Amino acid sequence: MSNTFGNILKLTTFGESHGLAIGGVLDGCPAGIPMDIKQIQRDLDRRKPGQSKLVTQRKESDQVEILSGIFDGMTTGTPIGFTIKNEDQKSKDYSHLKDNFRPSHADFVYEKKYGHRDYRGGGRSSARETACRVVGGAIAKQILAKYQVKIEAYVSAVGEIKTPADYSIYNIANAENNLVRCPDDIIANKMIDLIAKTKKNGDSIGGIVTCVIKGSPIGLGEPIYNKLSASLAGAMFGINAVKGFELGSGFAGCMRNGSAENDIFDIEEEEVFTKTNHSGGIQGGISNGQDIYFNVGFKPVATILQQQDSVNKLGEKVVLDGKGRHDPCVVPRAVPIVEAMAALVLLDHFLLAKTNHIQKSY
Amino acid sequence: MSNTFGNILKLTTFGESHGLAIGGVLDGCPAGIPMDIKQIQRDLDRRKPGQSKLVTQRKESDQVEILSGIFDGMTTGTPIGFTIKNEDQKSKDYSHLKDNFRPSHADFVYEKKYGHRDYRGGGRSSARETACRVVGGAIAKQILAKYQVKIEAYVSAVGEIKTPADYSIYNIANAENNLVRCPDDIIANKMIDLIAKTKKNGDSIGGIVTCVIKGSPIGLGEPIYNKLSASLAGAMFGINAVKGFELGSGFAGCMRNGSAENDIFDIEEEEVFTKTNHSGGIQGGISNGQDIYFNVGFKPVATILQQQDSVNKLGEKVVLDGKGRHDPCVVPRAVPIVEAMAALVLLDHFLLAKTNHIQKSY
Amino acid sequence: MSNTFGNILKLTTFGESHGLAIGGVLDGCPAGIPMDIKQIQRDLDRRKPGQSKLVTQRKESDQVEILSGIFDGMTTGTPIGFTIKNEDQKSKDYSHLKDNFRPSHADFVYEKKYGHRDYRGGGRSSARETACRVVGGAIAKQILAKYQVKIEAYVSAVGEIKTPADYSIYNIANAENNLVRCPDDIIANKMIDLIAKTKKNGDSIGGIVTCVIKGSPIGLGEPIYNKLSASLAGAMFGINAVKGFELGSGFAGCMRNGSAENDIFDIEEEEVFTKTNHSGGIQGGISNGQDIYFNVGFKPVATILQQQDSVNKLGEKVVLDGKGRHDPCVVPRAVPIVEAMAALVLLDHFLLAKTNHIQKSY
Amino acid sequence: MSNTFGNILKLTTFGESHGLAIGGVLDGCPAGIPMDIKQIQRDLDRRKPGQSKLVTQRKESDQVEILSGIFDGMTTGTPIGFTIKNEDQKSKDYSHLKDNFRPSHADFVYEKKYGHRDYRGGGRSSARETACRVVGGAIAKQILAKYQVKIEAYVSAVGEIKTPADYSIYNIANAENNLVRCPDDIIANKMIDLIAKTKKNGDSIGGIVTCVIKGSPIGLGEPIYNKLSASLAGAMFGINAVKGFELGSGFAGCMRNGSAENDIFDIEEEEVFTKTNHSGGIQGGISNGQDIYFNVGFKPVATILQQQDSVNKLGEKVVLDGKGRHDPCVVPRAVPIVEAMAALVLLDHFLLAKTNHIQKSY
Repeated sequence: MSNTFGNILKLTTFGESHGLAIGGVLDGCPAGIPMDIKQIQRDLDRRKPGQSKLVTQRKESDQVEILSGIFDGMTTGTPIGFTIKNEDQKSKDYSHLKDNFRPSHADFVYEKKYGHRDYRGGGRSSARETACRVVGGAIAKQILAKYQVKIEAYVSAVGEIKTPADYSIYNIANAENNLVRCPDDIIANKMIDLIAKTKKNGDSIGGIVTCVIKGSPIGLGEPIYNKLSASLAGAMFGINAVKGFELGSGFAGCMRNGSAENDIFDIEEEEVFTKTNHSGGIQGGISNGQDIYFNVGFKPVATILQQQDSVNKLGEKVVLDGKGRHDPCVVPRAVPIVEAMAALVLLDHFLLAKTNHIQKSY
Repeated sequence: MSNTFGNILKLTTFGESHGLAIGGVLDGCPAGIPMDIKQIQRDLDRRKPGQSKLVTQRKESDQVEILSGIFDGMTTGTPIGFTIKNEDQKSKDYSHLKDNFRPSHADFVYEKKYGHRDYRGGGRSSARETACRVVGGAIAKQILAKYQVKIEAYVSAVGEIKTPADYSIYNIANAENNLVRCPDDIIANKMIDLIAKTKKNGDSIGGIVTCVIKGSPIGLGEPIYNKLSASLAGAMFGINAVKGFELGSGFAGCMRNGSAENDIFDIEEEEVFTKTNHSGGIQGGISNGQDIYFNVGFKPVATILQQQDSVNKLGEKVVLDGKGRHDPCVVPRAVPIVEAMAALVLLDHFLLAKTNHIQKSY
Repeated sequence: MSNTFGNILKLTTFGESHGLAIGGVLDGCPAGIPMDIKQIQRDLDRRKPGQSKLVTQRKESDQVEILSGIFDGMTTGTPIGFTIKNEDQKSKDYSHLKDNFRPSHADFVYEKKYGHRDYRGGGRSSARETACRVVGGAIAKQILAKYQVKIEAYVSAVGEIKTPADYSIYNIANAENNLVRCPDDIIANKMIDLIAKTKKNGDSIGGIVTCVIKGSPIGLGEPIYNKLSASLAGAMFGINAVKGFELGSGFAGCMRNGSAENDIFDIEEEEVFTKTNHSGGIQGGISNGQDIYFNVGFKPVATILQQQDSVNKLGEKVVLDGKGRHDPCVVPRAVPIVEAMAALVLLDHFLLAKTNHIQKSY
Repeated sequence: MSNTFGNILKLTTFGESHGLAIGGVLDGCPAGIPMDIKQIQRDLDRRKPGQSKLVTQRKESDQVEILSGIFDGMTTGTPIGFTIKNEDQKSKDYSHLKDNFRPSHADFVYEKKYGHRDYRGGGRSSARETACRVVGGAIAKQILAKYQVKIEAYVSAVGEIKTPADYSIYNIANAENNLVRCPDDIIANKMIDLIAKTKKNGDSIGGIVTCVIKGSPIGLGEPIYNKLSASLAGAMFGINAVKGFELGSGFAGCMRNGSAENDIFDIEEEEVFTKTNHSGGIQGGISNGQDIYFNVGFKPVATILQQQDSVNKLGEKVVLDGKGRHDPCVVPRAVPIVEAMAALVLLDHFLLAKTNHIQKSY
């Protein structure tokens, strides 16, 4: 197990889907930063189940309780401990999951790896754990915001339905105005229809979240093995259901020529910038001051309301019924999770970069 | 800077493109494993410049010298130190690079991040450093091979030219028989033609390397934050010029329905397997015993033989001449690098997984 | 801040003396080990305030609540999250501490380092945090016990009063039968008298805790920089008030000749052992199968019931009154803390040592 | 194996006593610091064998070769790779060590831990490796010196012969004027006599090195688990032959009362200081701006020129002849090693402390 994320800013999380509580510790937070707890809760609410007809109807109020590290409304530099109670976890019968391996879930590999596992609702492998990342990320976002760094994500694809244009033409904040969190209203409606149709079929569908970081200082990223791009890729692949990550022009850019893909430098009012930004704001693994943007691909949710063949612990073939409440498409709820991980990565690198130089006062 | 890769098995590298030598330390290698130095050199030769007309004509013999950690032909469990001399680095005039920022290179960000930098040939940001990864990876590959784990990569795309089929129909070893390292002979020829044409135009082109890991045991990967998939993504994004990473069915799978994408479990002769492998051999971040496969996208090489606008350190606009020797397409030489990083990740996780259980003898 | 301890087995803690709760996360615990929660509470009770007339009379029931990682009475390999509520922290007036720097406390350095600090009861620097280490260590002790590794500590000195003999003649378990936790009854009584007298004088006194680890397998310790001895030294110096650490014959052995100090090997019934054990069970940083033993020196508690000169935040000279409840001597309560840290170190190294070799099944 | 030391500033070393070379990589060094290679060599010369009649007469010129990371006489922020050739390692017959376990050496534990080991001259467990620490430490010392931090160590005890007074009355630089590196000339002569006598007897003797750090800024040290004191203790216990570590008044202070041991704060010209410094410059694990000082105890060298009983790999009792060249007392050569490790710890913490706060410019 490896439940700590980050180098200087470290998020450690714990908790199973159906235990008493989930929670975590955010360590390495700089001291003396005002912290608005309500804003943390706001991000949690963007992730929580039951928020719209598009997502699972499970009921979890997902109230975070901060236990330490904040005093008189400011960070103290000591670890911020927090818990979120599990509420919808009582008196259920999970015995049907005890022995069966659900297709494309983590049941089989947890059974083989750990032998003894909490099979209730996926246990530790449940995406419920991502609520803790949202808490950590929401704290990081508040700190970054003080330094004009802004992180926003949105849904850019559901199945084959994609936003036709580049992020730069959208007011990303608009994405929060519709259920699917896509800043293009016309596309958003098509996505919502597709998800509704998919749900009716008892099926699920994948999609893509695009994340944009504006205002990043130049110089974040620690070559050779902790490049900013590598940190982001690793962080995103730590999120449940992620299958792909591409930076800037991504895989499409890998089909082009250097003469088309190179980002030409220019200068205006003593500020160097690039005329294009195929690099996605990161060159040589280090932020270059342009917008950082990337795509994160999520596979369709593995739980579907259809019968599926499988095997069980005893090596018998079984047929699993599809039942219960599930997300037909995970990307709308994944938006704050992607933002959270991006914020943790960026603040960690911000702190790391402070060590590249030495000055009298530190 | 962060020049150490891995958790238990740790590769630390050093060296600039035009210093005296590059080298590294591979720490955490298990003791008592026979090690064939010639095989390490063989992988280095697959990466080295000048090996074919498709790649840069720089001359580096890239001979590795092992300084420690291997005794009587076997690993001792102590760190394996090694160096590779830089040979083609003398009496050159790099003064034209001293002040100018080459487009889509790391010159600008290194200047801003570190202030004082070795500008000769890209310094530390040069892909020359990847030779050290190949050494580390070649050692890891030999150890994994003893446990029936086999790692093979190949070029699956150059520009728009792609292998039409899935890796599984190819004998990947065939890829070593042509200059571009593609196992599909017909496609390989088209790729070679495209690279030759690109070179003649003084341009460069991107591509994709596909990597396949066969024989991985079930249970590698440490959730939540060090999943096998996250390690691979981070490792690949640590390689120069990487822009995209996708596991299994990747971004294409993110457009599909769960009913089509789920990998149904089956059992034969008491062995559980999945009928399809869209997951790419990793579920819940843990290897499930199926083939692990993924794509790594490389952008076109930034150095092109064409004039490009840029700016210099003094904030002046300049025009850079394209000159010198360069790779028109990096993917053929990237194949052993991708394999190396995959091997380092896999062996590291193999060792980490040993700590999930406790037994009397360890 | 650095609130995570360990490499494979990682304890992360959080919490201030007067916040809502303290707690932690123990990550990396092997799966499938039966865990007795009552035994964890038993160690907490050995550390808690108010347990005897020798220690502070603060009231904290120190009930641990395990939130995750244990299912059906067994570890699952997932992180074990836990909290301990702070009970005696309400409605106090700590304003006298807000601006004043108590001598030989951490007030001054926290103020200078973090600027903004929780001054109530020492905040994060309070020894209250060690309760979380006891929880982590109690879990580690249970796992080690299954492999015949036994860790016992006792008080070997209070001020000038010391146990006259080597640990090996004592039944260390006897130490739990008296208030001061010294296995020598006669010495224990003298210690108790000295502490009582010290308390009456409104003063405090230092002491030494000796720790003995029996049954350690040969081969624990990772040279060069994570030797078992170095891990133990670092772990003990992480405990509040520790001023000295010595292994085996320690500083006294450093005055002797090699001919007297060398531990001669012998063999009986095919088992190699050393005739003496001045090395304290660790040679070259690696356990050699003999008893591991070491001394940990604790300074006198800084809080005393006497007037002391000091300065405050504003740079004014002040006189501090000694008041409140305090421990006149910390070593009796430090015994379970030393054991806990030793257990965390040993189990971490036990798991690390599993990675020195590779085998087909891991 | 764990051959990397430090958090931000990381020293990784490799090499066996009788391989081709030893060496290392110092990563995380801030950029833009002028570096004097001759000064590095000077510290190596203080450690090297053959420098006086008091130490082993082996011949090693111990010339360091810097391979990267320094350009135009300044650090570039990239890893500094270096090697030191092994010269006195050819054509020797070490077969007598192959099977025998020398008392109080690491032969036995390496054999048991790794199975396959380089037995020549102790292999990796040889103190020869400490030359690499001296290189790393010498670089760190130069950087610290620019910020008025000065680290000096000296021999304060050889066997029972000890400096009578506190470090503060000595001009520590004087220690370099005599063979034993003790700043008290009268005591130095007694130590030299004792070592000479010990050598004549074919024996060895232990001793103590005292280290003093002046000019440390306030605020270094990362509670709870990476306190400055804990880092120093762990670093010193990583040095070969170390048996004890005590900070400030150390074990002696643990026998005293709080009223005598507390360091009373005072203020003069707006600068807070403590009237005494029993704490050794570290309170709550954080530097308080006073001198940091500590003692490191070294056991007598295990190699003696006397016959000793032992056992061999086959489980047979054997008698080992004492022969060859050895140090009768290790502490004079240990002085630069202690300084080196202290410098690495201090600079690492200096860099870590920069991350406690966030500012617009980093």
